[in-house]
Amino acid sequence: MGVPDPSRLSAALAAVSSERIAARVRELAAIGGSSDGGVSRLGLTKEEQAAREMVASWLIPLGFKREQDAACNLFCSAGPSPRVLIGSHLDSVPDGGRYDGSLGVVTAVEVAEAAHAARLALPLEIVAWSAEEGARYRAGHFGSAATFGQLPPDVGDRELRDGNLVKDAIRDLIGRAPDLAGCRRPITDFIGYLELHIEQGPRLASQGLPVGVVTGIVGMTRATLLFTGRADHSGTTPMDARSDALAAAAECVLAVERVGRESGGQLVGTVGELRVFPGSANVVPGGCRLTIEVRSLSDATQAEAYGRILELTMALCDQRGIRCAVEVVDRIPATAMSQLIVAAIEESCARLGVPAMRLSSGAGHDAQNVVTAGVQGGMVFVRSTEGSHNPKEHADAEDAAAGTRIVLSVADAIARLGARR
Amino acid sequence: MGVPDPSRLSAALAAVSSERIAARVRELAAIGGSSDGGVSRLGLTKEEQAAREMVASWLIPLGFKREQDAACNLFCSAGPSPRVLIGSHLDSVPDGGRYDGSLGVVTAVEVAEAAHAARLALPLEIVAWSAEEGARYRAGHFGSAATFGQLPPDVGDRELRDGNLVKDAIRDLIGRAPDLAGCRRPITDFIGYLELHIEQGPRLASQGLPVGVVTGIVGMTRATLLFTGRADHSGTTPMDARSDALAAAAECVLAVERVGRESGGQLVGTVGELRVFPGSANVVPGGCRLTIEVRSLSDATQAEAYGRILELTMALCDQRGIRCAVEVVDRIPATAMSQLIVAAIEESCARLGVPAMRLSSGAGHDAQNVVTAGVQGGMVFVRSTEGSHNPKEHADAEDAAAGTRIVLSVADAIARLGARR
Repeated sequence: MGVPDPSRLSAALAAVSSERIAARVRELAAIGGSSDGGVSRLGLTKEEQAAREMVASWLIPLGFKREQDAACNLFCSAGPSPRVLIGSHLDSVPDGGRYDGSLGVVTAVEVAEAAHAARLALPLEIVAWSAEEGARYRAGHFGSAATFGQLPPDVGDRELRDGNLVKDAIRDLIGRAPDLAGCRRPITDFIGYLELHIEQGPRLASQGLPVGVVTGIVGMTRATLLFTGRADHSGTTPMDARSDALAAAAECVLAVERVGRESGGQLVGTVGELRVFPGSANVVPGGCRLTIEVRSLSDATQAEAYGRILELTMALCDQRGIRCAVEVVDRIPATAMSQLIVAAIEESCARLGVPAMRLSSGAGHDAQNVVTAGVQGGMVFVRSTEGSHNPKEHADAEDAAAGTRIVLSVADAIARLGARR
Repeated sequence: MGVPDPSRLSAALAAVSSERIAARVRELAAIGGSSDGGVSRLGLTKEEQAAREMVASWLIPLGFKREQDAACNLFCSAGPSPRVLIGSHLDSVPDGGRYDGSLGVVTAVEVAEAAHAARLALPLEIVAWSAEEGARYRAGHFGSAATFGQLPPDVGDRELRDGNLVKDAIRDLIGRAPDLAGCRRPITDFIGYLELHIEQGPRLASQGLPVGVVTGIVGMTRATLLFTGRADHSGTTPMDARSDALAAAAECVLAVERVGRESGGQLVGTVGELRVFPGSANVVPGGCRLTIEVRSLSDATQAEAYGRILELTMALCDQRGIRCAVEVVDRIPATAMSQLIVAAIEESCARLGVPAMRLSSGAGHDAQNVVTAGVQGGMVFVRSTEGSHNPKEHADAEDAAAGTRIVLSVADAIARLGARR
């Protein structure tokens, strides 16, 4: 290290293999795989553990040392500390796809393969974060939160969705009571962090671009609204004597959509859950509960939009004589990626001739925890189709290979920066 | 009979007892009663049968002959055929109240009590229709449909909501396989039909009137609409790339309300049921199913409003790129009460000094089947509070007694008309 060796980097870039990436995505997809090509591999389960074993089995022959912490994160390292941390997660949502998360781990392994093949000295730590999706454990980004001290202190005693305690589920996997607080690692272990992930949205595909440079991850406010009117007989209650909770909720749904549309792409607003009470064809709804979610790269924009939605909703409820109770269930600030890494990714795209665009991530990622903790981090998105979180999600192996070369190139650049410190 | 005997009618009217009505409402409410004052006495159950036994036990001492047909209707008759048919139903919805249906049977018994006390010759048949509410058997007005040949031919082999067959449920109650087709009775058995029922709406109470003269029962169209868009990640899908099935459904909910409001009281429109798919906070809804219901006293108004709602809905779905599939699940024409009976009820109200107003019924009643079959029929509504179909529904015993005197007076008038034929 110290002195750059451009010929070794070129050889490593040439060694990146789209065939190997495709083959390993297929191999991983067999763990928890279903006949429709999808994957159900929930976090903190035996299937996720089996996927970690497979990933470790790829890296150990390359000289990597394997460690698994009490939060079930897999770290495989080679070269002197501090290292470049590269990876993503191996768990999926129920009935999810084979690319979300897994592609970032497979391509991180490919970075190691290519560096190894070209004898490029690169201090690497490949990570597979556990339980990113919040499917079995209720909150997402479990593993990266453990590494950077962001889990609640009582997390071991909290219940999974299936009623088991977190500490019991992990004991079943690792054979001992987990010391989750002891998983924390100093940020000085890492020169930087890189995560490749499918886009999960349509922008790259619609622009015809294989990769995207992530500038930041949106923040989110999620709230539950309970509308209370009065249940009445649908036949005997005149229109002007009703307090219809569903009609008020319907106005709220459209207000959320309108505020999102009027933002000019600065935010998205969604009502994804809605229930009616009592929910009978011949009863005017007396109650309605829904969840609103607002996401934006700007916390100020997000807060303003959320406030405007509540204001519109309270006004319409006043007019209708409906009570509305609001409970904020989640609030996550927006996270900007490191300017330095964003610039390095863009420079690599240009040098390697990979057409790319800047974009923000509307979905949450482990990179939020890493960057919030103070590690310089960035993300590369790979074009995908059919969205994500379903068996049809798809990324092309050639696009993934292009993304891998960018990650390899940036890892090499920041490793040299780190070595010069 | 033949020659009117005003002194006997006056004596009978004076014999109507609000105390006895109140006591009998209480007695009946003990069958299937709950601690909150409500009643769960579903049609075609042992509880409904016990209520029939109680009613028969009140009438037999007055010289009435008791019959129960294979549809579980109770008929108690006195005097020569044709007779005036008076009654209502004894079943309730789950967690219903003590007045809906029962008050009409108790006051019919009170007509018999009063006539008996005053030795007023009045050919009477008191009926307790079975299974009016459509709670255990899926459709309403079961008993009256059996009497007037309006049940589907295969009704015995149809399933109740609990999975049992209709014929098996009835066999358990009457001890033999029911001949439902054999329940049919000729309309020439009846001079006329009178039913007293709580209003189930707020109009009489808001006008300060104890009784109402029912001019007709609204018709209804009920349809299920299935909106199909595309489920997407709520964070990664820009507002302009969404096909949000719930947003389209929300516009439909408001269109139903608007069409109802703009009718100037000519119809009511309701969305009482709505479900979202997949129904997760972070997924743009890919599907939404709701039920719309339109009721009006005018079939033309109702058809026009239903058509307008569908037209608005299809237009907004076109704009949004959402598919909408419509299935009509119920269509019942409006039923006008007999002009003659309506006039006789109004005349009685005036003569007895009971302030009343004409109104239509937004809820369905057995009277629809009776009148549709060709029997001259009418209904008297009694002021009620707290709506209906809940434990709090309430009617005052004095109002019920006033309604009973009107029914008695009209029964006397039409019996004399019939006798003059």
